[in-house]
Amino acid sequence: MTTNETYLIGLDFGTDSVRALLVRGSDGAEAATAVFAYPRWRDGLYCHAAAQQFRQHPLDHLEGLEYVIRACLQQAGPAVAAQVKAIGLGATGSSPLPVNREGTPLALLPAFADNPNAMVVLWKDHTAIREAAEINAHAARTGTPYLQYAGGIYSSEWFWAKLLHVLRDDAAVREQTWSWVEHCDWLPFVLTGGNDVSQMKRSVCAAGHKALWAADWGGLPPAAFWESLDPLLEGFSSRLYTNTCTADQPAGTLSPAWAAKLGLPESVIVTTGALDAHVGAVGGQIEPYFLSKVMGTSTCDMLVAPAAALGQKKISGICGQVPGSVIPGLVGMEAGQSAFGDTYAWLRNLLAWPLQWLGEDGDAAGQQLRAELAARILPELNRQAALLPVHDDAPLALDWLNGRRTPDADPLLKAAITGLTLGTDAVTVFRTLAESTCFGARKIVERFATEGVPVKGLIGVGGIVKKSPFIMQLLADVLEMPIRAHAGEQTCAAGAAMFAATAAGLYPNVEAAMHAMGQGFERTYLPNGERAAVYRRRYAQYERLGYLATALYSPR
Amino acid sequence: MTTNETYLIGLDFGTDSVRALLVRGSDGAEAATAVFAYPRWRDGLYCHAAAQQFRQHPLDHLEGLEYVIRACLQQAGPAVAAQVKAIGLGATGSSPLPVNREGTPLALLPAFADNPNAMVVLWKDHTAIREAAEINAHAARTGTPYLQYAGGIYSSEWFWAKLLHVLRDDAAVREQTWSWVEHCDWLPFVLTGGNDVSQMKRSVCAAGHKALWAADWGGLPPAAFWESLDPLLEGFSSRLYTNTCTADQPAGTLSPAWAAKLGLPESVIVTTGALDAHVGAVGGQIEPYFLSKVMGTSTCDMLVAPAAALGQKKISGICGQVPGSVIPGLVGMEAGQSAFGDTYAWLRNLLAWPLQWLGEDGDAAGQQLRAELAARILPELNRQAALLPVHDDAPLALDWLNGRRTPDADPLLKAAITGLTLGTDAVTVFRTLAESTCFGARKIVERFATEGVPVKGLIGVGGIVKKSPFIMQLLADVLEMPIRAHAGEQTCAAGAAMFAATAAGLYPNVEAAMHAMGQGFERTYLPNGERAAVYRRRYAQYERLGYLATALYSPR
Repeated sequence: MTTNETYLIGLDFGTDSVRALLVRGSDGAEAATAVFAYPRWRDGLYCHAAAQQFRQHPLDHLEGLEYVIRACLQQAGPAVAAQVKAIGLGATGSSPLPVNREGTPLALLPAFADNPNAMVVLWKDHTAIREAAEINAHAARTGTPYLQYAGGIYSSEWFWAKLLHVLRDDAAVREQTWSWVEHCDWLPFVLTGGNDVSQMKRSVCAAGHKALWAADWGGLPPAAFWESLDPLLEGFSSRLYTNTCTADQPAGTLSPAWAAKLGLPESVIVTTGALDAHVGAVGGQIEPYFLSKVMGTSTCDMLVAPAAALGQKKISGICGQVPGSVIPGLVGMEAGQSAFGDTYAWLRNLLAWPLQWLGEDGDAAGQQLRAELAARILPELNRQAALLPVHDDAPLALDWLNGRRTPDADPLLKAAITGLTLGTDAVTVFRTLAESTCFGARKIVERFATEGVPVKGLIGVGGIVKKSPFIMQLLADVLEMPIRAHAGEQTCAAGAAMFAATAAGLYPNVEAAMHAMGQGFERTYLPNGERAAVYRRRYAQYERLGYLATALYSPR
Repeated sequence: MTTNETYLIGLDFGTDSVRALLVRGSDGAEAATAVFAYPRWRDGLYCHAAAQQFRQHPLDHLEGLEYVIRACLQQAGPAVAAQVKAIGLGATGSSPLPVNREGTPLALLPAFADNPNAMVVLWKDHTAIREAAEINAHAARTGTPYLQYAGGIYSSEWFWAKLLHVLRDDAAVREQTWSWVEHCDWLPFVLTGGNDVSQMKRSVCAAGHKALWAADWGGLPPAAFWESLDPLLEGFSSRLYTNTCTADQPAGTLSPAWAAKLGLPESVIVTTGALDAHVGAVGGQIEPYFLSKVMGTSTCDMLVAPAAALGQKKISGICGQVPGSVIPGLVGMEAGQSAFGDTYAWLRNLLAWPLQWLGEDGDAAGQQLRAELAARILPELNRQAALLPVHDDAPLALDWLNGRRTPDADPLLKAAITGLTLGTDAVTVFRTLAESTCFGARKIVERFATEGVPVKGLIGVGGIVKKSPFIMQLLADVLEMPIRAHAGEQTCAAGAAMFAATAAGLYPNVEAAMHAMGQGFERTYLPNGERAAVYRRRYAQYERLGYLATALYSPR
């Protein structure tokens, strides 16, 4: 290992774990990697699935932050550690948390140590459904343009809805909440030793996609808008922020305390954070007009295009269009599905129900058997589902197990499985659910097209790309387009390292970093024409089913 | 045990097994009982669930017939055996099979020993969907009244549709098929040593409910009707039958061969058979205007009323109204649901999918563990589902996993589960499916009412009544009526013994036999008003969902 090389660290704060990737600046080659599963989250603490409450304790993240960086440096050795130039990061979002004036998360204060309302309100938390609906109604009533870059619908998964929900739900938290910060903004603030939240660097990506920040109206929607919605929001606009940064801009350098704790030079640059999927799209080597699908528990579908080509166009029904949110200089557009891998995990958990009795008496062998059998479910379902014939008469599902994110966000929508007979087995149910997630993906591609943004190619990145050739092939067949499967195991962390390299001055811009450091594509899934024809008919049925289900569940 | 007592044997040829009950004539007290699970059926031979093909080899029944009677007599001893006066029986239906001129099932001939088309086409076999549709269209086109006592719709589960399907499907079977006989007619024919199918006693119950036999048109619909539908049916009308018997009429006495084989006197009377559910309704002590629900894999819902009270009324959408089909002298009306317990079994099988790997290497301990865990699924789902709160926002299902039998038979309908979220677990899915089966039950009660036949009470008999207090309470809540749970473990076999006692002259009529030999009711489930109010709203949603699903799946 030569010591005149430089190194970067990319961090990916995902839903279940944080990953670090230590890479070489010249070519992105991996020097070390480490993963840390959040222990409190893994134990289901602070969550209540039936109420769609998903909270994470910031200690899970702090412990993980230290662990993964130290583990990487230990693998790579001190010579490499001395040559680390910058740290970049992506995190889930909108996953905001309440902080005091110093920027300390309330959950880190003893009084709130076990209060879920003082923690990170994870992206998939849907407790703020009512508040999102109120924001939408308020925007419609006041005739304001604030939703125009957010697809026209504010989501219960987002920043303001969650803030209002927590403020209403918990008086004690409300009294101590000075500001409200995205997870991806809090983490660089921690590493750079921030102690004044007004100085916190805010990501344009999170701000634009989740908090209605736009240059058009000079920042966040004004105080009058929020205070007329609910007086509880009084003062928040002014205490939040006006300026934002792209992820290639430094948030600062490592604080002495963190430099010492990690064993890194204090000169190490920490970049402004960004949302994980957007960073992952960079790690996955996104190109203009290619839809970069980050496929994990949910999907985030990113598309970048030159501002000039979009003109005044406001894309309806997507999660947002924000200049610089993916690649500085291009407009980043985000769409996605609230439950993708989560759909398969739901079925796995359902099928694993009788396995609860293995090892129920604390018997270690039984518990190991339980874990082994549970781990076999999805691989075996994938294997067998790929062998099933495709036909028009098969069951048909709606993929809204966690509501619908896009097109046209509606958290109240629910999933359905129809066309069931006594002969419908677990493999068929899996295949049906898998199809429905791909039909949901097609809805997004079609929306971009009907809104005048042609999707010219597809890039798949993320866990599903690696784990399920069946899903990838199904997606190609349903979308009737080739999909490039990115070779990277950790595209978000890799993308974060590319931003870090850019911030450290190794490359003039992110595109150059992507070109030099990208890992390329391992294969392309091509659509099968015969199957595609069946899926086209089934997609029409899916649309019809969705229409009917919406009619059934819509309040009358 | 006194030897001046007389004894009767009741046989119940169910879906999975045959049961015998040896009872005392004076009070119906059980002297012995035995069960025999059909071995070929248990191994899944001759069936193809995905194609909804369910066939049974008549050897399963012959072996079972001998086993259960001998087992009962062995338990009771020779003194009792000498005092057996009659054997009665019920069997599933419409479960017809092809026979030659001697009445021998084709499957018992070497050439057809493994041919599913030469076997019993079990009630739940749906391979004749096309043929049933053709019969309905033909009846509508020719303007004939032959469906008026069958609810207006001929079912793919019934006699003629299955005959036509087998004739079309299998030339070899077609050439050797002289006649087509119901399972409940073939069994007494066997025991009485029949060797000429033209002399076979035919049950009015099976004939009236399944074969369109009615006194109004002098028996079966005439040859011209069938031959104009398909020339393959030529000759069948004349080779079938004109006369029918009620189940209290003797079919004959035991043949010398069977008397010797079983160790019974040759004087033992064998009654004419009948459909199991109708016999079970008698065993369950049916009363006029009480809906007697035989609840097992499917439900058969029987209601009896005086012919004078019905007048010329033809009840639309049910499975049939046939004088004497349940109790001689009263009109028997049948309705039912194609999948009741089968719905819960479907979920159990789905959830048991990962258990396939226990003992997959042939390990006996693993296989035993697999069986134990599978056996825990339904009891545990029942226990936990009873604890769930009832609310309007819960998932909602359609119970048509095996099509819909009544009201308004439609075998093409399929089941659905809607309103699913990431928080929906196995217990909730079970509860949702259970609710849907109870909503299906409510549809039937409402149909009788709207057709002018008031349902004044409910009687529950069968396996579900014994196994699931949760389902029984749910049914009472959904139907908003009390349900009497019959105490009998084996009401079909008990009813068969009551018919035997009547045929043997112990009682002047079936009502007197029911009164003397009935086992009474063990408890009454009372509806809970608060839950009933929620279910009333959910039932309205179920009806709406059914309407929409029908719209989605109906051919356009």
